[in-house]
Amino acid sequence: MVDKIKVGILGASGYTGADLVRLAAEHPHMELSVLTANSHAGKRFGDVYPHLGAINLPDLIKIEDANWADLDVIFCGLPHGTTQKIVASLPKHVKVIDLSADFRLRDVTTYKQWYGHEHFAPELQKNAVYGLPEHYRANIKTANLVACPGCYPTAALLMLIPLMQAKLIDKNSIIIDAKSGLTGAGRGLKQNTLFAEAGEGMSVYGVAGHRHAPEIEQELSAALGANVMVSFTPHLIPMSRGEFVSTYANFADGATISDIRECLNNAYKDEPFIRLLAKGAGIGTQYVRGSNQCLLSVEEDRVPGRALLFSTLDNLVKGSSGQAIQNMNIMFGFEETLGLTQQPMFP
Amino acid sequence: MVDKIKVGILGASGYTGADLVRLAAEHPHMELSVLTANSHAGKRFGDVYPHLGAINLPDLIKIEDANWADLDVIFCGLPHGTTQKIVASLPKHVKVIDLSADFRLRDVTTYKQWYGHEHFAPELQKNAVYGLPEHYRANIKTANLVACPGCYPTAALLMLIPLMQAKLIDKNSIIIDAKSGLTGAGRGLKQNTLFAEAGEGMSVYGVAGHRHAPEIEQELSAALGANVMVSFTPHLIPMSRGEFVSTYANFADGATISDIRECLNNAYKDEPFIRLLAKGAGIGTQYVRGSNQCLLSVEEDRVPGRALLFSTLDNLVKGSSGQAIQNMNIMFGFEETLGLTQQPMFP
Amino acid sequence: MVDKIKVGILGASGYTGADLVRLAAEHPHMELSVLTANSHAGKRFGDVYPHLGAINLPDLIKIEDANWADLDVIFCGLPHGTTQKIVASLPKHVKVIDLSADFRLRDVTTYKQWYGHEHFAPELQKNAVYGLPEHYRANIKTANLVACPGCYPTAALLMLIPLMQAKLIDKNSIIIDAKSGLTGAGRGLKQNTLFAEAGEGMSVYGVAGHRHAPEIEQELSAALGANVMVSFTPHLIPMSRGEFVSTYANFADGATISDIRECLNNAYKDEPFIRLLAKGAGIGTQYVRGSNQCLLSVEEDRVPGRALLFSTLDNLVKGSSGQAIQNMNIMFGFEETLGLTQQPMFP
Amino acid sequence: MVDKIKVGILGASGYTGADLVRLAAEHPHMELSVLTANSHAGKRFGDVYPHLGAINLPDLIKIEDANWADLDVIFCGLPHGTTQKIVASLPKHVKVIDLSADFRLRDVTTYKQWYGHEHFAPELQKNAVYGLPEHYRANIKTANLVACPGCYPTAALLMLIPLMQAKLIDKNSIIIDAKSGLTGAGRGLKQNTLFAEAGEGMSVYGVAGHRHAPEIEQELSAALGANVMVSFTPHLIPMSRGEFVSTYANFADGATISDIRECLNNAYKDEPFIRLLAKGAGIGTQYVRGSNQCLLSVEEDRVPGRALLFSTLDNLVKGSSGQAIQNMNIMFGFEETLGLTQQPMFP
Repeated sequence: MVDKIKVGILGASGYTGADLVRLAAEHPHMELSVLTANSHAGKRFGDVYPHLGAINLPDLIKIEDANWADLDVIFCGLPHGTTQKIVASLPKHVKVIDLSADFRLRDVTTYKQWYGHEHFAPELQKNAVYGLPEHYRANIKTANLVACPGCYPTAALLMLIPLMQAKLIDKNSIIIDAKSGLTGAGRGLKQNTLFAEAGEGMSVYGVAGHRHAPEIEQELSAALGANVMVSFTPHLIPMSRGEFVSTYANFADGATISDIRECLNNAYKDEPFIRLLAKGAGIGTQYVRGSNQCLLSVEEDRVPGRALLFSTLDNLVKGSSGQAIQNMNIMFGFEETLGLTQQPMFP
Repeated sequence: MVDKIKVGILGASGYTGADLVRLAAEHPHMELSVLTANSHAGKRFGDVYPHLGAINLPDLIKIEDANWADLDVIFCGLPHGTTQKIVASLPKHVKVIDLSADFRLRDVTTYKQWYGHEHFAPELQKNAVYGLPEHYRANIKTANLVACPGCYPTAALLMLIPLMQAKLIDKNSIIIDAKSGLTGAGRGLKQNTLFAEAGEGMSVYGVAGHRHAPEIEQELSAALGANVMVSFTPHLIPMSRGEFVSTYANFADGATISDIRECLNNAYKDEPFIRLLAKGAGIGTQYVRGSNQCLLSVEEDRVPGRALLFSTLDNLVKGSSGQAIQNMNIMFGFEETLGLTQQPMFP
Repeated sequence: MVDKIKVGILGASGYTGADLVRLAAEHPHMELSVLTANSHAGKRFGDVYPHLGAINLPDLIKIEDANWADLDVIFCGLPHGTTQKIVASLPKHVKVIDLSADFRLRDVTTYKQWYGHEHFAPELQKNAVYGLPEHYRANIKTANLVACPGCYPTAALLMLIPLMQAKLIDKNSIIIDAKSGLTGAGRGLKQNTLFAEAGEGMSVYGVAGHRHAPEIEQELSAALGANVMVSFTPHLIPMSRGEFVSTYANFADGATISDIRECLNNAYKDEPFIRLLAKGAGIGTQYVRGSNQCLLSVEEDRVPGRALLFSTLDNLVKGSSGQAIQNMNIMFGFEETLGLTQQPMFP
Repeated sequence: MVDKIKVGILGASGYTGADLVRLAAEHPHMELSVLTANSHAGKRFGDVYPHLGAINLPDLIKIEDANWADLDVIFCGLPHGTTQKIVASLPKHVKVIDLSADFRLRDVTTYKQWYGHEHFAPELQKNAVYGLPEHYRANIKTANLVACPGCYPTAALLMLIPLMQAKLIDKNSIIIDAKSGLTGAGRGLKQNTLFAEAGEGMSVYGVAGHRHAPEIEQELSAALGANVMVSFTPHLIPMSRGEFVSTYANFADGATISDIRECLNNAYKDEPFIRLLAKGAGIGTQYVRGSNQCLLSVEEDRVPGRALLFSTLDNLVKGSSGQAIQNMNIMFGFEETLGLTQQPMFP
């Protein structure tokens, strides 16, 4: 058996931290050595997340008390802006898998525009690899710094990158209506995420200004080789986990729904976590909950020339922690599915 | 005080029947005289809907046992196809407010195409008025047969009819991403509406084939005076009540977001149940639950030339039973808001 | 028509405040003149509760800016301890209906023991009437200060007071297993009331120490004329509104389930808001949601000599705001059901 | 590596069947060879449960088409009464793990009384072992027929058996207030389990007549060596998975809360799936969802001499499918936790 690698999780008290711990417990090569959470330093992890109280884990500590020397890899689940500084100060041998938005945007000017401050580590940004394994696997393999995509971008891009590369859809027609459960809003206390406020109702948010838009546009532009803008509108759905992305787009000249289906089939037929559903099959977040799977469904609209594209994943797994571990597996030469074979839980 | 009118509800055991009874209990001029529900004939209404057990109501009977002679108006909440035959056989003095799809489509050929059988009462269809009070009030006032719009069409059309009439949006660009709670699926037993199946997850359904599409297109075409097709894609959301419609559309040449806002403001500023929200105000189904209100919100997209149009209502009230009573108030010369002033219930 | 009375709501930004406003909108004699909410002073009420944005209301102000002189009655929904001081400083002509715990416990020593500080207005406490209309109606009629019962006590006491008065159950055997939805925890920000934490799961809380226990014991002891202690254990249920109380108790010597049923029937047969269900009828919070009704159900256990007693109400209505308005109606000589006839909303 | 055993699941289309498949996918020694579901025969399993569509599985067949000869073990998830006949006709080498109620009650007279018909395989009943591993491990090891406990009995008995054996609680004082999510009601179509009916509300059911009562009483009587009757009252909670059991009981003479805690600690300190929580720690179904864990919490009541005993588990895992696999592991000499180490999923 391969030896275990020593793993640190920075910002372990968020939901992505908890799901990293949940999944790591099933991974044969991960040893959780450092868990930081500044506001909970000194506590047992099981006090912060009682559902994981049966696992033996190191207590939570402050970032400044972490000993990096022993670690092989760290997962960063810190608020945006924070990771840039910390990563710059780490020993060079520690690989970094960042779950925040800090290194996703290759253009630091775009970063500044959307996040409101200068990038703190522009040199590191150049070396960051966008951690969407199905499209950047080769780069991830040799990367020291992987920027995991946002949850919405993961769902949207797995659908759209192959179609843009194959020039099958009209780049000016893309409308993304996205829906997410409440964990997407994090564990922080906000009035609109209280059960009594968010339950039994749904709403739109981040209208015309959600930070996942430039990330999607960056990758679609790269896939097409030309500038792409998209309508991106997220909605808050009364469920804890799950993300559903409905994308509307017109066919490019001459393209058909069969071309689209074939293109996606070719792109993903050997991918362990991506599944293109048969025509007419139902698609819903219920079918991926708790797993690292992403489902894709493609249908032709009644309106001639328009495609209906649906993708769904669990925002905390394939949309975050699971994808991060998938990236780790690639970076360390493990089998890519290790620790990620849990099937979806339904109901 | 005006005397009471005698009211019958056909198909009273569905959710729309229950909400008609709930609302009628607060209406000073409605006397519920006949309640039919063939599969529950002989039962107390409170046995079928225990939450209304405190109200004195006639027992449920079969349609064939109803005495129509005494009635002033009937509400029909029967499966599609059924109402056409029944209405044709009623005494002429009885006004009919139909909540099914039986008389919504003016073109009986379109009806046949979407519902799979010849229209059973094409002569009556000619006299049916589309029961969207904000746009057909004058016709409703003198109608004997009102066909209440579907829930999705109500939410979509209240937003789009004024914009089509004013030619503010590109008729070829309309994409409607609709979301509904579970009551929209009715009280019939279906596996996908079980709590364990529908809870904690969301899905798309009726892809490229939902029967509310032709109804929306009929009204938009009438508003514009030209043929309109729309993408219409409904999703099932884990909540009981509520409907949220996100419409994406490009501006017509020269139109601006201010034009759109002004147009809607003019259309609805005196309407008691329609509220155009201020720019930036939150919109969600939580804010209309249980009420006859419809909220509208309009924002400009980041993608130049595109509008983001959101509308929300309670599918059982403004989307069905409440709107039906609003129509009744108009038909009988009552104040239009009678029995419908209940405020939304939140949380 | 009777003139309107001028009403103030102190602490209007809580859920009970919102439901007072919702119900008051249907009350013919209530004019909301003052709404205070110190942390939201200066805002429109509709900004704090968008679902009520269609109602014309005075803006929120600070308590210290309120003009009491014009008011006839105030509803207090302030944190415990606060109301005692404020009420002591009000003009004498203003009637007070307190929804907090400040005046519920007649014994100020017990108050201190459970609330951790001396009572600030012991003189006023002597004049406070416990606002459970079905059992204190005569006193409420002439009261200037009414202390509305807690939500759990309302549900438990409506079941148990008649049975204690009639000495039908063993006072040492009472076990109350209570369940509440999330609105019971208020609108304040707490981690355990986030949707992602509270949804899809349930838990126990306040074990052996919930402050509603002494209130229940006070009233049961008064009803029996002897000291009563009860086991009281509340649970948090993933729903917004609703409270369900399962009480287990042994029959007193010689008593039978028929005696219990008859006793409750006699106690409540003329009460507009209390309904004793038939043997075998289903009982659940769904059947009271949004209404001022309380349902009672009584069954005999398999274990000989034991009664199963179930009561349910909407914690924000009969458990709080609705009962408060019911008290107001009594205090001002209005019909007791005014503004409270809304039927439950189901689904 | 140990060779795989060939496994059949009878009645695989229920929720317990689905969870058996989900868990088996992570078990290194289980090969699913036969999946029966008479009403779905001929379908792909992934058509019936799309969330498991990524697993290679045999198609569903009718029971009469199953080839038993190759199988090592079958799990039976059939309606009660059915398994008795089928098991009697199986080849002797096939071990049987029954998840129904068919072999739980050792006394066939009691069986008849609660299930309404004569036991069809009284001879087999004599050899059936009650499959609660923590208390019947030795018998399970050599059994050919294991009757897995009901979900409620598992949660109740894990708490109470040690206390009865140690005579720490008064046998006449036991009151069990149980709460379950909707999956406990199965995948069959019932009106009261529709989302719109069961959501946002809770109710009591099976009052004084739930079939899990005699099962609990059988085991408690065996543990004590004397007849025990309990109050057992289940409630339906708006969540999909999870069961929470609140048990109220008086101390036996001389016993203390410390005795109870110590007794449970001794009973379970080496058990991999049972965790006695520290005094004051929170307990809720959220902390076990999807896992085979059972949490126990013990507190002293304010009422002198009374214990508050809380237990929680996932009804589909430790309450059913997970416990069945745990039994299989014991019967086949595998490590008891194999395939069952998935941590709870929260949120």
